Amino acid sequence: MTSQDLVDQIRAKRSFLCVGLDTDITKLPDSIAGRREAIFEFNKAIIDATADLCVAYKPNLAFYEAIGARGWEQLDKTVKYIREKYPRILTIADAKRGDISNTAALYARSIFQHLGFDAVTVAPYMGRDAVQPFLDYQGKWAIVLALTSNSSYDEFQLLPIAGTPPRPLYQEIVQRSRQWGHEGNMMYVVGATRAEMLKEIRKLAPDHFLLIPGVGQQGGSLAEVVKHGMNRQCGLLVNSARGIIYADRGPRFAQAAREKALELQREMEGYLREAGIVQG
Amino acid sequence: MTSQDLVDQIRAKRSFLCVGLDTDITKLPDSIAGRREAIFEFNKAIIDATADLCVAYKPNLAFYEAIGARGWEQLDKTVKYIREKYPRILTIADAKRGDISNTAALYARSIFQHLGFDAVTVAPYMGRDAVQPFLDYQGKWAIVLALTSNSSYDEFQLLPIAGTPPRPLYQEIVQRSRQWGHEGNMMYVVGATRAEMLKEIRKLAPDHFLLIPGVGQQGGSLAEVVKHGMNRQCGLLVNSARGIIYADRGPRFAQAAREKALELQREMEGYLREAGIVQG
Repeated sequence: MTSQDLVDQIRAKRSFLCVGLDTDITKLPDSIAGRREAIFEFNKAIIDATADLCVAYKPNLAFYEAIGARGWEQLDKTVKYIREKYPRILTIADAKRGDISNTAALYARSIFQHLGFDAVTVAPYMGRDAVQPFLDYQGKWAIVLALTSNSSYDEFQLLPIAGTPPRPLYQEIVQRSRQWGHEGNMMYVVGATRAEMLKEIRKLAPDHFLLIPGVGQQGGSLAEVVKHGMNRQCGLLVNSARGIIYADRGPRFAQAAREKALELQREMEGYLREAGIVQG
Repeated sequence: MTSQDLVDQIRAKRSFLCVGLDTDITKLPDSIAGRREAIFEFNKAIIDATADLCVAYKPNLAFYEAIGARGWEQLDKTVKYIREKYPRILTIADAKRGDISNTAALYARSIFQHLGFDAVTVAPYMGRDAVQPFLDYQGKWAIVLALTSNSSYDEFQLLPIAGTPPRPLYQEIVQRSRQWGHEGNMMYVVGATRAEMLKEIRKLAPDHFLLIPGVGQQGGSLAEVVKHGMNRQCGLLVNSARGIIYADRGPRFAQAAREKALELQREMEGYLREAGIVQG
C-alpha cells in the first residue's frame, strides 16, 4: 500500500483512525467466549462494525501468541479477512521486532508474506540492518519506535546524546533512521501521551506518517496530537484499542465498538476540515 | 532455574555452551525435510546428540514464526522435549521482545507459562516497565540486549550519553537496568564480535551471566570472550547455532553437530580449568 493510497483513504473516510485489535481471550463477551475460533469471530464482528470508520487495523501480536498456535491461526484468519473484504485498509502487525539481519528477514517473511500484513512495528536499538529487511519489501512499511506511551519511556528515550547542544536519544533515532528509507516505506511510533514532543519529531520528519498509540485508556489527547503532529496530508494514524473493542462486554459489543469509533471519526473529521484536508 | 543450578551444570559438564536452535525449514537434511514435523524431528536429533555437551538451548523464535502456526507447534514440542528429557538444561527464547507492560505481561505468559521457557531475550528501549513483567516470574530470567553482534550495532549502541565523561548508550543501559532485577533473574546479551567491550560490561555487571552470540559464523573469538568476560563462577553462556546445527546437511547431521559441539566443549573445558572453576 502506498502513501497516496493511505491519504486517499483518510480523505474518503474523513478519518485517520487505527483500530487496535488487541483481542484478549479472557475479555471476550459471553456470547462468543468458549467458541473454537472465538478470537477470530470477535475480530470479524469488530471489523465489520468499524471498517467504514477507520483506515487501519493493528493487532498486537502478543495477544495472539499468548494462546500459542491457535492464536497464530486466528491472527492469520483475521488478516486474510481484512485483506479480502476491506483490501484498502492498512494492516499493521504490532510486533516491535528487532533482530540481526538474517533473522529480521525471517520476521519480514513471516509478517509480510505468510501473514500478509502491510506494515510492522520495529525496535531501533540494533540499528539499520535490523530494519532493512523489512524495507526491502515493495509496498510494505516499517514503523520504527521513536517515543513510546509507557510510563518508563523516559529511562532511555530521553537520554541526552552528547553534542552541541545535546539532544535526546529519540531525536537521534529519528534523525538517523530517516536515511534508512523514505516517506513511502517508513513511519514512526510516537505515544500520544508525549504530544509536546511530537513537535520535535515533526521537525525532523515533516512528511512521514506517525502512528500514535495511547489515545484514550492511556490518557493521550487527540486534540494535542493533532495540534503538534498533523501535516498537510494529515500524516497521522491514531490508534485506539481497548476504548473501542471493549466498549461493551455484552451481546451488543460490536455496536458499542462502532459507536466509540464513530465518536473518534467525527472528532477526526472536524480536525481534517479545520486543516483543509477535507471539505464540506 | 537458579543461578546456582546453572553454575552446577557448567561445572558438571565442563561447558558453558548454548546451542542455538535456529532451525530453518529450507536448510534441513533430505532425510528429514518434507516430514510433517520436520523441524521438531531435526531439533530432537540435535538435542539428543548434544545434550551432554551444553548447558542451554536457545531457539530464535523468528525461525518458528516464519512458518506460522505449524512452526509454533513445533517450537512448543521442542521446549517440552527438552524440559522432559533434559530438565537441568536452560531453555532460552530468543525473542527480543519489548512492549508496554500489559502487553509484556502477555509475552511473559506466552513464553514462560505456555511454552515453558526458562529465559527470554528482551529489548531495552522502552525501559523498565517493558521488562518488569518478565522479572515477576519466580525462577525465570530476562536477558537484556546490551551489545548486539550485527554490523550496524554501533549506530545507536555506541552513541555517547552526555556526562563527565560521556559514556556509550550500552553502558548506560547496563548500569540502569541492573537495578531492575538481580544476578539471579537477569542476564545481558553481549555480541562475541565486541569482545573488547566485554571488559566494560564486566565492570558494570561483575556477577551477572552474559549470553554471548556471534562466536563462529559471525566471527567472534571464544578466547577473547573468555579473556574479557569470564568471572569466578564462569558467568558466560556462549551460543553457537549455524556452526553446530548445520555442520553437515547429510544423513549424519546429528553426529556432525555433536562433533562441532564437542570441539567447543573441549575448548571451554580448557578455559574452565585455567580459571580454576573445574579441576582435573
